Amino acid sequence: MLDQIGSKWAVLVMGELGRHGARRFTELRQHLGGISEKMLTQTLRTLERDGLILRTVYPEAPIRVEYELTPLGQTLRGPLKALTEWSTQHIEEVVDARQKYDERTRK
Amino acid sequence: MLDQIGSKWAVLVMGELGRHGARRFTELRQHLGGISEKMLTQTLRTLERDGLILRTVYPEAPIRVEYELTPLGQTLRGPLKALTEWSTQHIEEVVDARQKYDERTRK
Repeated sequence: MLDQIGSKWAVLVMGELGRHGARRFTELRQHLGGISEKMLTQTLRTLERDGLILRTVYPEAPIRVEYELTPLGQTLRGPLKALTEWSTQHIEEVVDARQKYDERTRK
Repeated sequence: MLDQIGSKWAVLVMGELGRHGARRFTELRQHLGGISEKMLTQTLRTLERDGLILRTVYPEAPIRVEYELTPLGQTLRGPLKALTEWSTQHIEEVVDARQKYDERTRK
């Protein structure tokens, strides 16, 4: 389960729905720069299957489909926030460590 | 970066080193049931490259190699603990949601 929770796009989708509430597919794509349609579809399906997001179809014309966090998904917001905050705070140290490691091992 | 942090084995290795301090390769394998030698080697290398763990070689006979968290790795313990605790607490709800999703979509 951790593999999926930790996947970059899943974390970003959860964050976006956590901050903004219900979103349509096209809105999500606009706010998650660089995600392909296929990857977003897969990510949403996995999160829905895990019970973390709810997909609601409004029978209008044209049909409207919205995604939002379930109560279970809400409980994951805190842990994910801690992880993304850590990443933001420490990304430079990690990049620096990788560079030094690559220099050491290239010799 | 999130992809790697969230990978199941990386989280388990970090947890093991966080709880027990320095560990040798064989000790880690024993305590992480089911990880292959190749996967553990890859996981340790990635974590070392990211600056999260330190690999120390003791020039004894036979050579001893130990792994431990770096100060940077220590700062990641809290966020990872929150994530693993969430998984432990909610795994049944997720399994249940998956089962219901599969029943719905099989129709």
